[in-house]
Amino acid sequence: MTQSLADHTTPFVRDEWYVAALSSEIDRRLQDRKILGIGVLLYRCEDGTAVALHNRCPHRSFPLSSGKLVGDTVTCGYHGLAFGSDGRCIAVPSQSTVPKGLGTPAYPLVERALFLWIWMGDPAHADPATIPDHHWLSDPDHAGFTGYIHCRSNYIRLHENVLDLTHFPYLHGDAVGDVTFSQLPFRTERKGHQVVVTRKDEGRVINGANALIIGNEGHRCNRLSESWFTSPAFHIAHTMIEDLDGGVNGRAEFHNKIIHCFTPETQHSCHYFYAQARDVAIDRPDVTDAIARVAYKAFMEDEEALELVERTWTDEDLADYRELSVRGDLPGLHMRHIIFERAMIEKAASLPSRQAEKQPA
Amino acid sequence: MTQSLADHTTPFVRDEWYVAALSSEIDRRLQDRKILGIGVLLYRCEDGTAVALHNRCPHRSFPLSSGKLVGDTVTCGYHGLAFGSDGRCIAVPSQSTVPKGLGTPAYPLVERALFLWIWMGDPAHADPATIPDHHWLSDPDHAGFTGYIHCRSNYIRLHENVLDLTHFPYLHGDAVGDVTFSQLPFRTERKGHQVVVTRKDEGRVINGANALIIGNEGHRCNRLSESWFTSPAFHIAHTMIEDLDGGVNGRAEFHNKIIHCFTPETQHSCHYFYAQARDVAIDRPDVTDAIARVAYKAFMEDEEALELVERTWTDEDLADYRELSVRGDLPGLHMRHIIFERAMIEKAASLPSRQAEKQPA
Amino acid sequence: MTQSLADHTTPFVRDEWYVAALSSEIDRRLQDRKILGIGVLLYRCEDGTAVALHNRCPHRSFPLSSGKLVGDTVTCGYHGLAFGSDGRCIAVPSQSTVPKGLGTPAYPLVERALFLWIWMGDPAHADPATIPDHHWLSDPDHAGFTGYIHCRSNYIRLHENVLDLTHFPYLHGDAVGDVTFSQLPFRTERKGHQVVVTRKDEGRVINGANALIIGNEGHRCNRLSESWFTSPAFHIAHTMIEDLDGGVNGRAEFHNKIIHCFTPETQHSCHYFYAQARDVAIDRPDVTDAIARVAYKAFMEDEEALELVERTWTDEDLADYRELSVRGDLPGLHMRHIIFERAMIEKAASLPSRQAEKQPA
Repeated sequence: MTQSLADHTTPFVRDEWYVAALSSEIDRRLQDRKILGIGVLLYRCEDGTAVALHNRCPHRSFPLSSGKLVGDTVTCGYHGLAFGSDGRCIAVPSQSTVPKGLGTPAYPLVERALFLWIWMGDPAHADPATIPDHHWLSDPDHAGFTGYIHCRSNYIRLHENVLDLTHFPYLHGDAVGDVTFSQLPFRTERKGHQVVVTRKDEGRVINGANALIIGNEGHRCNRLSESWFTSPAFHIAHTMIEDLDGGVNGRAEFHNKIIHCFTPETQHSCHYFYAQARDVAIDRPDVTDAIARVAYKAFMEDEEALELVERTWTDEDLADYRELSVRGDLPGLHMRHIIFERAMIEKAASLPSRQAEKQPA
Repeated sequence: MTQSLADHTTPFVRDEWYVAALSSEIDRRLQDRKILGIGVLLYRCEDGTAVALHNRCPHRSFPLSSGKLVGDTVTCGYHGLAFGSDGRCIAVPSQSTVPKGLGTPAYPLVERALFLWIWMGDPAHADPATIPDHHWLSDPDHAGFTGYIHCRSNYIRLHENVLDLTHFPYLHGDAVGDVTFSQLPFRTERKGHQVVVTRKDEGRVINGANALIIGNEGHRCNRLSESWFTSPAFHIAHTMIEDLDGGVNGRAEFHNKIIHCFTPETQHSCHYFYAQARDVAIDRPDVTDAIARVAYKAFMEDEEALELVERTWTDEDLADYRELSVRGDLPGLHMRHIIFERAMIEKAASLPSRQAEKQPA
Repeated sequence: MTQSLADHTTPFVRDEWYVAALSSEIDRRLQDRKILGIGVLLYRCEDGTAVALHNRCPHRSFPLSSGKLVGDTVTCGYHGLAFGSDGRCIAVPSQSTVPKGLGTPAYPLVERALFLWIWMGDPAHADPATIPDHHWLSDPDHAGFTGYIHCRSNYIRLHENVLDLTHFPYLHGDAVGDVTFSQLPFRTERKGHQVVVTRKDEGRVINGANALIIGNEGHRCNRLSESWFTSPAFHIAHTMIEDLDGGVNGRAEFHNKIIHCFTPETQHSCHYFYAQARDVAIDRPDVTDAIARVAYKAFMEDEEALELVERTWTDEDLADYRELSVRGDLPGLHMRHIIFERAMIEKAASLPSRQAEKQPA
């Protein structure tokens, strides 16, 4: 069974949408970000469309991010080869014609509600309809925030972290609030290649971050939480709170969503994009700021803990080491099994690399 | 023959007592020290007993040294699993029972005269009676000092260094004194898995550190030295000095012992614990300070030289390189042959790893 | 075909003269320089002769450069073994005789016009007659300069760089001058294990560095350039300029030579020794300074660009990546094919390592 659980030796799942960047990060500068082990060049065209190219001149491997952007065209800083925003080479200064098929791979890139989604797998399989829903982030009826943390840990450890709340009191102390909730019994369901964890907390006085958002400190509430692992790239936690003590301003039901996007950089590091969207206190930037600070502190505590774990794995030479699991790990074990399965399916299909496809015969 | 000499590719000898720490280093803090490639957690219980556990939560590999110590119990800083000083898990906060056999390996740890000795091999073989004798360190009839140096060199190079005094004038100059002595003929005996080197120096005027200790500068003395490699972890040099010019305060025979304990950290670094014990000038802290300073300077010179040697080995890609030996290397060659032999004996016995034993079936 | 092109996985060509140092760098100090992956000790004897020894005591691998030089003899800083300038051990302090054959390899080293040339291959093949000609560097009828840059790139990339001038406008901007020239058609000839690239530029107004040297800014000139890859260690560009507008001080023909010497340090770094020699303005140190500054700036731009390329190769895990070539790469492809061929010839001949030869049986 342990052999069928993904870890840092498992190849990345490539046929999937991953967050490449927050929308706000990418502009007319040529920026470089390593994704699934590949250097990716990110920039916006003059019309605002964001594009992603392999950040490597196909001629002599110079990083295109160290070149120049004029209009939508990127010029290599070494020999001046020019590439359009589709990756095709459109000029080789030292000769009058461009060799057929010369270009750098372009990766499908789709912008959705504050995120830029990239597809590093077979472009023929890239269907934007499969991008996870997170429309609340740009919904006028919601307020929230986004953020980014660079993590020195394999991305699977981060999925494991958000699927198992039992670490809250030990790693985050009182900051995250609602310690009792984190230790409640939960229900785990595997639905195909997804996992959903459900918790119900009935009639307990609310506290911490949720009370701060709603402004109902001390009220008894019902709280329903659904935490979804929807892909190797995306995790969303939906929380519904029902105020049993009269609510606030005549309203008794409130929703809060926390989104965690994990994009592998290498097997030992990843990009962590996070966001929150709530349908309450939406005209309160002070509440947004307060919650964003709590979230950032907690997520950094996760990052620091997982970096220690990562170092233990890489520093200690214990080939046969097997971690043991407890009941709280059930959702995480499902997740690791799913990622392993998907990686093996891709391996079996011998997914041709983007590089191989784009190169002339 | 060269194939049967241990070097940095030889597995560590695990069935052996190694010094884990000076007694004075370990207290109620949770401390981490890598020993034979394994992260070890060291702390003292409330009754003062020092314990050593594998510094890795068996659940998700978090370093226990980043957790908390309450009473004798260590709580993991990630999910709160609690471990007794014997390494057994005694609580998993997210569930009411503890899975059978859950725990982190505990390593036999014995405190003897200023040192804490650890056994990283098969615990069934751990017999404290085989800990090398160094009772003089805490003997009221002796005075001396202890110290620690972190060395960026394989431990075998350090054994080689203390078994071959011919390097004194070239590496240490006049500081260590008695250059002539270091180049005297010596006798090498192999006794099972030990090596003893004997030197006799008769009727020569004494100088340097020994004269400083005894206070008999300029007297002719007989000097008998026995330098023992007793295990991969321990080397002791006994020196007996007989004053032929009337002695000091009516006494003519004096003893001095220098102890070198080498504990591999990795194949390219080790922990060096050293100590001195003498039966003369025992009420003279000024003498202790002076000798400790000379020793520290010389041992650091050894460390720096061996670090250069280590770097040469790792930087130069010369797979077939073979060092050549001269007569002064005879004790060191015996030592390397013994370590190689012991490593091969353990390999043949397929010593089960501590990890494997402690994990539930 | 790609398999027969050398890259950073190709073994170094050892049977070749490489520049070990500028003459001016080596003196009575013991200096260490890694060449073809081997630590080399460089110093001058009392009579001024420069010598090169393996920088590793054959006894216990201590770097001899951390020892002492007295007369022509190097004494190891660990056990005091002494070596003559031919590498032979002449004293082992702890014993009265020196073991037969004990020594450290000495590498043939020849001084020619400001450079020290080393032979790291089979010494039986070391024929100084095959050292590339660069006598102009010390010729009283010429003026010029030499310089050194440590490059964090494989040496093959640097050969590629000097064989393909089409990068000038993109990497060096206007500084190097004569952008049009760099993009002119050229002729490539392979002559055995050498490559020559010829460019003819007729009747164009001269500018940039050449005009600065000659002092004929604005004159129409014919310009003939021959750029030679003569060995894995050496590249020379000869330029002949014929002034069609009356010349300067009654003279119409001028010569300028630029020499690039690349000595691999590791597969990811190399030593870059460069020089210029001209037969005009030879009594003008101000011209020398000005040209040397322009050259240094341009060569550093090359180094920085190639370091980016090197990092792309080592950071991205793309085993099958194949760079594509354009017409300007033809000289570089010949060069890479020649280096590959020579490396394979040496492999087939199983060139015995220097170490193996020098060690006693």
